[in-house]
Amino acid sequence: MHTPAFSSEVYTRRRDVLKRNVASGIIILPGNNLSPMNYADNTYAFRQDSSFLYYFGLDVEGLVSIIDVDNDREILFGNNATVDDLVWTGPKPTVQELAHLVGVRDAQPLRALASFLQNATARKQTIHWLAPYRPDIAIALSEWLTLPLQAIQKDSSRVLVQAIMNQRIQKSDEEIAELEKAVDVSVDMHVAAIQSVRAGMFEYELVSCVEAVATAHYCRTAYPSIITTNGQTLHNHYYGNSLEEGRMVLCDSGAELPSGYCGDLTRTFPIGKRFTTKQKEVYQIVLNALLTAESLLKPGALFKDIHLTACRELTRGLQQLGLMKGDVEASVHAGAHALFFQCGLGHLIGLDVHDMENLGEDLIGYDDEVVRNPQFGIKSLRLGKRLKEGFTVTVEPGLYFIPELMEMWKQEKKLDAFINYNALDEYKSFGGIRIEDNCLVTASGSRILGKPLAKTIDEIEALRG
Amino acid sequence: MHTPAFSSEVYTRRRDVLKRNVASGIIILPGNNLSPMNYADNTYAFRQDSSFLYYFGLDVEGLVSIIDVDNDREILFGNNATVDDLVWTGPKPTVQELAHLVGVRDAQPLRALASFLQNATARKQTIHWLAPYRPDIAIALSEWLTLPLQAIQKDSSRVLVQAIMNQRIQKSDEEIAELEKAVDVSVDMHVAAIQSVRAGMFEYELVSCVEAVATAHYCRTAYPSIITTNGQTLHNHYYGNSLEEGRMVLCDSGAELPSGYCGDLTRTFPIGKRFTTKQKEVYQIVLNALLTAESLLKPGALFKDIHLTACRELTRGLQQLGLMKGDVEASVHAGAHALFFQCGLGHLIGLDVHDMENLGEDLIGYDDEVVRNPQFGIKSLRLGKRLKEGFTVTVEPGLYFIPELMEMWKQEKKLDAFINYNALDEYKSFGGIRIEDNCLVTASGSRILGKPLAKTIDEIEALRG
Repeated sequence: MHTPAFSSEVYTRRRDVLKRNVASGIIILPGNNLSPMNYADNTYAFRQDSSFLYYFGLDVEGLVSIIDVDNDREILFGNNATVDDLVWTGPKPTVQELAHLVGVRDAQPLRALASFLQNATARKQTIHWLAPYRPDIAIALSEWLTLPLQAIQKDSSRVLVQAIMNQRIQKSDEEIAELEKAVDVSVDMHVAAIQSVRAGMFEYELVSCVEAVATAHYCRTAYPSIITTNGQTLHNHYYGNSLEEGRMVLCDSGAELPSGYCGDLTRTFPIGKRFTTKQKEVYQIVLNALLTAESLLKPGALFKDIHLTACRELTRGLQQLGLMKGDVEASVHAGAHALFFQCGLGHLIGLDVHDMENLGEDLIGYDDEVVRNPQFGIKSLRLGKRLKEGFTVTVEPGLYFIPELMEMWKQEKKLDAFINYNALDEYKSFGGIRIEDNCLVTASGSRILGKPLAKTIDEIEALRG
Repeated sequence: MHTPAFSSEVYTRRRDVLKRNVASGIIILPGNNLSPMNYADNTYAFRQDSSFLYYFGLDVEGLVSIIDVDNDREILFGNNATVDDLVWTGPKPTVQELAHLVGVRDAQPLRALASFLQNATARKQTIHWLAPYRPDIAIALSEWLTLPLQAIQKDSSRVLVQAIMNQRIQKSDEEIAELEKAVDVSVDMHVAAIQSVRAGMFEYELVSCVEAVATAHYCRTAYPSIITTNGQTLHNHYYGNSLEEGRMVLCDSGAELPSGYCGDLTRTFPIGKRFTTKQKEVYQIVLNALLTAESLLKPGALFKDIHLTACRELTRGLQQLGLMKGDVEASVHAGAHALFFQCGLGHLIGLDVHDMENLGEDLIGYDDEVVRNPQFGIKSLRLGKRLKEGFTVTVEPGLYFIPELMEMWKQEKKLDAFINYNALDEYKSFGGIRIEDNCLVTASGSRILGKPLAKTIDEIEALRG
C-alpha cells in the first residue's frame, strides 16, 4: 500500500551526496513513531521525520536507518508485522520489501540496532545523529547509544546538520513539482474559505470548510490552521469566535501532500461582501510590501535586506495613515514598525512548513555572513541569509494591531519619535492583515508557486461575489 | 477564552472524593504538553490528559497539578504568558486565574515544582503518580522526582490508579449529558457518510465529509477514523482506495467535544444504493448479535458473558450460512468464531474513547473476579468485568473476512471441526461488517446514548436514497 514519492534512484543519489559530504563515520537517522494523544494506542496521524523522508522516502512508522559512510552501505532496521498486526492494521510489506523500494539492500530487526551501534563504537567509528525534537526518539537514542539524555541533545553532529542543510535547502525539479501541487491544493483551500465565509458563522465552521478541501485531496494541513477574526494574534489557534459583519478573517492554512511537501498561504478577507475603507487602506499597504519584497527575490539577495525593505514599505504606508512619523530609515533601524509587524518576512518551506527548523533555526536561516539581530521584531525573522537558486520561501508581510502591545508601548512612550500613539485608538479593534505567497528563487529572479490565488482587493471582493 | 466544562464545585467535589480514597501522601497529575509533529514548534492539536481534565477541567497545555492529601490542598503549577506569547498566541489568563476557574487557590510557577517535590520527599510524604503514556511526561517526572526513567514507569501508584478508576468508571449526570452530545455529533458524521458515498469516490473523500461535520460542530475526531472499503482490517487507517459499486464501506468514527467526552460509532453500508443479498445475510447476523448483546446490558451482568453470548449468536448465523458447523457452545469455547470475530465486543467510553486505557487495560476492564483469557479473539476483549449503573460502554460485534488469516488457518486445518474451510473461498473479498452503538448501563438495564442512527438494513438503505 505504501509508495515512496520518488524512484529508488532519487533516494540512492541523495544518500550518495550525503555520504560524500559527511565523509566518514556512521549516520543514524531514526524515522518517527506514532505519537500518543490520550493513551499509548490512541495516536495522532503519523508524521514521518522530514530528513528520513528525504533520504529514505518511507512514510512508515517505527523504522530506523543507518548510513555506514565508512563501508558505503545502508541498513534499514524495523520489525515485520505479526498476526495481530495483520488483524488490526492489515497486511504490510516486510522491512526488506520497504528497503527495496528505496534502494536499500540490508534490512534487520530493530532489536539488532543497539548491538550494531555498540560494535561500531568499539571499532571507533564516529556516530552522527541529529538533536531529536521528539522525546521518544531522544529516549531511544539514549538507550541505543548508551548515553545520557543530555548527551543526546548536546553531542549531536554539526557535520551532519550542515550536510543535510546544504542538500535539502536547494530544491530539485521533482521537489519543486511536489511543492507546486501542495500550493495548488492550498489555493483551493483558500478559495473555499473566501467563498464560504458569512456573517454569523463561527470560526470553526470555516475551519471545517478549509480542512475538508485538504482531506478531499488526500492531504493534511501542514501546520495548525490559523483561521480567525483576531488576525492580530500571529499564531491564533482558537476557533470559537463568531464572525461579524464589518470585520475580517485572516486565514493562514496550507496542505501537506502524502509525500510530505507543504504549502503555506495566507489571505485576509472581509466577512461581509466588501472591505471597509479603513481595511482597504491597511490591506493595500501590506500588499505593496508583499509585491515589493517578491520583486526583490533573486539569487545573491540577502533575505534580511528584503525583510528590511518590506519594513520600510510598511512604515511608509503607516505614515500615510498617520500612525507613524519621522525618518523611515531611522524608524526601521530602531524597530518602531515592530509594533505593527512583530515578526519576520518569511521562512524556507519544503518538506517542513518551516523547512528544516528541527536542525536549528539559526543554522538554517543564518550563517557567518548574516547573524540574527536580537531586536524585537527582526529577532523573529527566521531566514536572513543570501538566497540561492532553488530556495523556496514564504513571503508574508503583515500589519497586526495588538491592543495589549499598543497599550504597553504607549505607557512606556516607546520610540514615540516614530509612533503617533494618539492615532492608534481607532485601530484597537482592527485585527490584523497578512498576505502570504510561496516563492521559488529561480536563476534570474523568482516565481510564485502554484496556481494564482486572489490577492488584490478587487480580486478578493470578486470571489466574495 | 478558556472555559472548563463544569463549575468549579464539580472539580472540587471530585478532588475531595479522590483525596478520601487515596487517604494520604501527595498526588502529582501532570497535564499534557503540545506534541511535536516534524519540529518542536509545529505541533499536533493539543489533547489534554483525561484524568487532569476530570479533576482540574483546564484544557490548557503546560500545567501540572499537585493534590497534597496530607495537607488538604491543591496547587496548580504553570508559567504565565510573556510578551512574546501575547504576540504569537494572544492574551491568556494567568495560572492564578486558571486555578480559580476550577476551585484551586494556589498557583505557582513551574520552576517551583521540583523543589516542592523534593521537600515533600524530605518530609517522607508518599508521592503518587500514574505511569506516563507520553515520553515527555516521563522525562519531566524523572527530572522532578530525581528518579530514573525506568522507576517512573515501574513505581507508579496502584492506589492512585484504583482510586481514579473507581471514580471515573461510573459516569455522573453531567458526564452523561456530555456523552449524549458527543454521540449526537457522531450520529451526524455517520449520516453524512451514508448519504455522501458514491461509487468512484476515494475513501479520503468520504473521510473529508465525515470529519468536516465534526469540525463544524467545534469537535475533533476522538480517534483516527476508520473509513474503509477493507472493513476486514479492524483498525484500517489507509484512505487511498477507490470505492466500487457492489462493495461496502465500514465507517468507524466519533466526535470528541471540547470537554473531552467522546462518541464512537460504527456503521457499514453499501457503496451502491442497496446491499447485495450476501451482504444482507452477514449484516443481519451482526445486527442480531448487537441487539442480543444490548438487551443483556444491566447492572450485575458480566460483560465477558455478554461477549460470549454475542459470539454464540455470530456462530449460529455463520452456521446457517454454511461457514461454520458443530456444537455452538463447544465452538465458541474453542474460539473458532475468532476466525471471523477476532476482537472483543466492546469497551468503556468516556473522556477517552477506550476510557482510562492509560491506567492499564487489565486494571480497568478486569478484576479479581474476571481475569483476561489469553485465547486468540477473546484476549482482545478490553472489558470483562461486572457492569454497574453509570458504566458507559460500546457494543460492537462484527464479522471480518481476512483472506490472509483464513488461508493461514486453513493451511493449519485449525479447529476444522467447527469451520467449513471449503465454503470460505467465496467470502475472500467480502470485507468486514461492524455495527457499534454507545450504551449507558442504567439502574434496570441500559439505553443507547445519543439520537437514533439508521441501523437495520432497511434504515440504512433508506438513507442511501
